[in-house]
Amino acid sequence: MIRICEVGPRDGLQTENTFFSVEQKVEMIKRLTAAGLKKIEAVSFVNPRVMPQMAGAEEVLARLPRAEGVSYAGLVLSRSGLERALATSVDTLHVVLAASDELNRRNSRRTVEQSCQELVPVIREAAAAGRNVVGVLGTSFGCPYEGNIPLCRVLKIASLFCEAGCREITLADTAGLAHPQQVRETVREFRKSFGNVDLGLHFHNTRGLGLANVYAGYLEGVVRFDSSIGGLGGCPFTPKASGNVCTEDLVNMFHQMGETTGTDLEKLVETARWVQTQAGRQLDGMVMKIGNGSANG
Amino acid sequence: MIRICEVGPRDGLQTENTFFSVEQKVEMIKRLTAAGLKKIEAVSFVNPRVMPQMAGAEEVLARLPRAEGVSYAGLVLSRSGLERALATSVDTLHVVLAASDELNRRNSRRTVEQSCQELVPVIREAAAAGRNVVGVLGTSFGCPYEGNIPLCRVLKIASLFCEAGCREITLADTAGLAHPQQVRETVREFRKSFGNVDLGLHFHNTRGLGLANVYAGYLEGVVRFDSSIGGLGGCPFTPKASGNVCTEDLVNMFHQMGETTGTDLEKLVETARWVQTQAGRQLDGMVMKIGNGSANG
Repeated sequence: MIRICEVGPRDGLQTENTFFSVEQKVEMIKRLTAAGLKKIEAVSFVNPRVMPQMAGAEEVLARLPRAEGVSYAGLVLSRSGLERALATSVDTLHVVLAASDELNRRNSRRTVEQSCQELVPVIREAAAAGRNVVGVLGTSFGCPYEGNIPLCRVLKIASLFCEAGCREITLADTAGLAHPQQVRETVREFRKSFGNVDLGLHFHNTRGLGLANVYAGYLEGVVRFDSSIGGLGGCPFTPKASGNVCTEDLVNMFHQMGETTGTDLEKLVETARWVQTQAGRQLDGMVMKIGNGSANG
Repeated sequence: MIRICEVGPRDGLQTENTFFSVEQKVEMIKRLTAAGLKKIEAVSFVNPRVMPQMAGAEEVLARLPRAEGVSYAGLVLSRSGLERALATSVDTLHVVLAASDELNRRNSRRTVEQSCQELVPVIREAAAAGRNVVGVLGTSFGCPYEGNIPLCRVLKIASLFCEAGCREITLADTAGLAHPQQVRETVREFRKSFGNVDLGLHFHNTRGLGLANVYAGYLEGVVRFDSSIGGLGGCPFTPKASGNVCTEDLVNMFHQMGETTGTDLEKLVETARWVQTQAGRQLDGMVMKIGNGSANG
């Protein structure tokens, strides 16, 4: 069973030029869960003055139906984000830190060291409050500003985050720089230090390698992946980062390979087309352009 | 060393709405070889009344410079194609047969059986005339009309083609239906029967799996791949087949993984942008939109 975290409503929408209202976001998330997605990165607790598209996190969460087995996550970059998150019913906190100083500075106005000092107690408090906490480590596979990021630096942050209470770590390729061999080596190294930690992978398709990297992770036993409906997304502080790995393209790959995802590909494609209409631009997803992977596709 | 066959001038241009003159094709091929590509599927010997974009094969070949180590290939679907090919200096014949009756009928107006009967002596004569002959087996990974294509049918054709004189077989995913696990299983099965035959793979990125499939083939030891500059291409008789695997995206992946391709990624990207200008539409290639895979990309 492949476990997908749908990041379209957050990572996806964050860089869309077309503004999505609270109503549209709620409708989008309802459609995503109706298509079978069980985990949705629904909101971000960043300052809406910095990221207007992410405004209304509390309203979105308040209006989302609670369904058995469906879990909503919110992005947290700082203590103020934690405080907002704990005042909502959000199930999971995605505590994000980029392993590159320059990207982290642009993302959260702090060095990696400063963010670590702030986020370790944030994770501790969130875990103590009974929330699930996922540590999301940006630029784990390279940085558009700093180039290679030593894996030991990524693993050091993972270690601090896990000690503080993260049960899951997601290694994120913020700038779409990862390649399949690197993914395999990174997963192997991660496992040596964190055999029991639930490892997820978050890729962007910037250089066309999104699904190749997902496949590489899968070959190493990873079954948890972030993806974005229609391939929405990017990173506002990463030059030319294009969309996330596309949810329905990823689902098509895994279904073709005989894996289950708990999702309905046809409904995902319908949802991607609906999001495309709302966004008013052609999205990057491939399967949505042609039908599914069946013989008549 | 990864060996790339650039199919942009043939498989790529074949479905472009913008007509490319002989001059443009020659210029395109010159730019491709200047970027380091050593094998180019330069022309098709199909009837230009059926495929107007492919007109002028003889003229294109006559005007191409002959460079050490650079080899030009032409597509042959029938005896009349062979006769045209043998009257030119083309180095390699790509003798194409789709393993699906329905697609082969649309492609060449013959059943698989009829094509086999015609093409086996074609291969024999081409080999006897000192040309290199590659058997290209379309719909090897599935057909948009017939669905699954039994691998034994593909292997049977490969066997007939090899007996007739093909030293290389390319398994082509005409409709972009292949998935990575299938690629690995297919390569393993092929190798059991044809250990000594030079196996190449030809993928389309229709469902976003182009590079994932290339990587899967590479994991099984395949080092020969077809690709198309900028991701140009499709198949005129395959509904909604989108572009070939993109040459510069493939090169970026292999260079990132430490493999050599003999090509210059920067020049490939420049060439892709030049082709894009000539085609008058945005091409599918990803790296050409953002720069190469380096830290500053």
